[in-house]
Amino acid sequence: MTHSPLMKALVYHGPGEKSWDSVPLPHISKPTDAIVRVVKTTICGTDLHILKGDVPAVTKGRILGHEGIGIIQETGDAVSNFKKGDHVLISCITSCGKCEYCKRQMYAHCEDGGWILGHLIDGTQAEYVRIPHADNSLYHVPPGEDEEALVMLSDILPTGFEIGVLYGTVKPGDIVAIVGAGPVGMAALLTARFFSPSEIIMIDVDESRLSMAKKFGATKTINSACGNVAEIVLAQTKDGVDVAIEAVGMPQTFDICQNIVRPGGHIANIGVHGKSVDFQIQKLWIQNITLTTGLVNTNTTPMLLKTVESKELVPGNLITHRFTFDQFLKAYDVFGNAAAEKALKVIISNT
Amino acid sequence: MTHSPLMKALVYHGPGEKSWDSVPLPHISKPTDAIVRVVKTTICGTDLHILKGDVPAVTKGRILGHEGIGIIQETGDAVSNFKKGDHVLISCITSCGKCEYCKRQMYAHCEDGGWILGHLIDGTQAEYVRIPHADNSLYHVPPGEDEEALVMLSDILPTGFEIGVLYGTVKPGDIVAIVGAGPVGMAALLTARFFSPSEIIMIDVDESRLSMAKKFGATKTINSACGNVAEIVLAQTKDGVDVAIEAVGMPQTFDICQNIVRPGGHIANIGVHGKSVDFQIQKLWIQNITLTTGLVNTNTTPMLLKTVESKELVPGNLITHRFTFDQFLKAYDVFGNAAAEKALKVIISNT
Repeated sequence: MTHSPLMKALVYHGPGEKSWDSVPLPHISKPTDAIVRVVKTTICGTDLHILKGDVPAVTKGRILGHEGIGIIQETGDAVSNFKKGDHVLISCITSCGKCEYCKRQMYAHCEDGGWILGHLIDGTQAEYVRIPHADNSLYHVPPGEDEEALVMLSDILPTGFEIGVLYGTVKPGDIVAIVGAGPVGMAALLTARFFSPSEIIMIDVDESRLSMAKKFGATKTINSACGNVAEIVLAQTKDGVDVAIEAVGMPQTFDICQNIVRPGGHIANIGVHGKSVDFQIQKLWIQNITLTTGLVNTNTTPMLLKTVESKELVPGNLITHRFTFDQFLKAYDVFGNAAAEKALKVIISNT
Repeated sequence: MTHSPLMKALVYHGPGEKSWDSVPLPHISKPTDAIVRVVKTTICGTDLHILKGDVPAVTKGRILGHEGIGIIQETGDAVSNFKKGDHVLISCITSCGKCEYCKRQMYAHCEDGGWILGHLIDGTQAEYVRIPHADNSLYHVPPGEDEEALVMLSDILPTGFEIGVLYGTVKPGDIVAIVGAGPVGMAALLTARFFSPSEIIMIDVDESRLSMAKKFGATKTINSACGNVAEIVLAQTKDGVDVAIEAVGMPQTFDICQNIVRPGGHIANIGVHGKSVDFQIQKLWIQNITLTTGLVNTNTTPMLLKTVESKELVPGNLITHRFTFDQFLKAYDVFGNAAAEKALKVIISNT
């Protein structure tokens, strides 16, 4: 009888149950795999959804997490883009690179990947993680970059950019409203600025997040706890906004979007919704609007890395709290209580 | 006391009430107006909605109709593209050509136009009609063309093409489903073929319309009265359709579309809806779908005219019944009872 070597990891044990456990190390199971030593990771709002039991595909015993930066420890025989010792950005989306969806850069729908980390296979909230299809699912960390900041590129920045800004087709001069000033809403705000909109109106119930949004470049903020947001937006615009980005995932926040979009405008839904919404098509059929939904493809990760290198994008500003791996449960407490803690993104370091 | 000269017209007198009346002739009221003698017109499903009382903006005494072909009788001083005697296609959309929306070719939302004919001002179901902003709202009939067929370009062909096919981004090789084989669904079918999709699946409850759809190029037809359409479509495709075009305007038909669209696919809503729909965003948020709505802009009318001239598009095939102006009420009876009468589009001629 042999003993497998162990590592520490954040393990889901069913709704409401998680612990910082000792578990077996991952190993290469396919030639396209890589094992990555996780150096920095974070917690996503999605992890909180999982812990609430909202994502039943996640089974007991699963290591959570789909974001992080690490160092290649071992590679399968088919991996050619990476070698031991390389510093890598882990994408939240795994892509085989050869299915129909991958060939369309729709990696979210990869037939042998998509969002699987910390969902259908063990994730990044651990000392080590197995990354399938490593050649397509990892990115080299540019030399000299702040690795902590790059963790924001695993998920939230491509999500805000692709599903909010690009799907919403933000253009120079546009009036953009972003409903929800959480991490993904902020990511949409930061990347909407690439395209020089004339206004970015940030809408949230949390004053501290709204003031943070102002620092990130919001031109206006509206506290949705104080009055009818749609009336306020319509009073401040000619006939509504060009782009309404939904970054919450509730019927009420979706409603704000459908009530403020102008004729010819876009509603870009980023929010993860747990129930259907009452879509006002009896009013909107005639308004020539476009509504998009989506899980991030992370096909823009290389583009976003360039904007970080050129200092156009400073993702480190999204980080409000820092922890070490032995404080993982505390990090969850803080992130799970984000409003009171004034937390946006937390970084947990394997030091 | 003078007597105005009179003409015959189809007049709306409130829900369920219409008659073929003698009414005053229209006259130039702005320098940008033209008076057109109507030669051919038709009846739209929208006219039936108005008669049901579904469009409260239409007031008693309004002459209905927003489609037709005619001859210029008189022009205002500012009209320069047309002169007396010109044969013209009347667009269902009036556009000033100079507001922000017109400059974006979103004529449906023209700030001094849009859909006003037979809605907010008197329409084309009359011997004469006043056309505001004539230079932007009329098109020259190409010499030698079948004028009757061109009536299909006033509304239904640009509607099916712009709001169904172009908004749905039909591409070569796509699987397209069209829900509703009425005139606008058929217009979407005919114009989807421009882009060489691999499949066009036509869905309707009416067998005679489905067999007509086959003649127009549908590769498959599904009678939605016989079983679960979504299951049938999903069984016949890998993971749904690339483009689902809604050409009815009911929650049930919208549901078919949202249940058959594949990841990365498009739902293009053309249907005029009277109530909201239950949008399954809890399933679709992750599917990277695009949903579009819209009133026709008729910005593609010049393009469609070219396809008629090149015989790529043969709009006359949509016409099933013909009447003269003195049979206008009978034409309404037939069109209002389209299934039993096997009617698609009716032409009423001012002979």
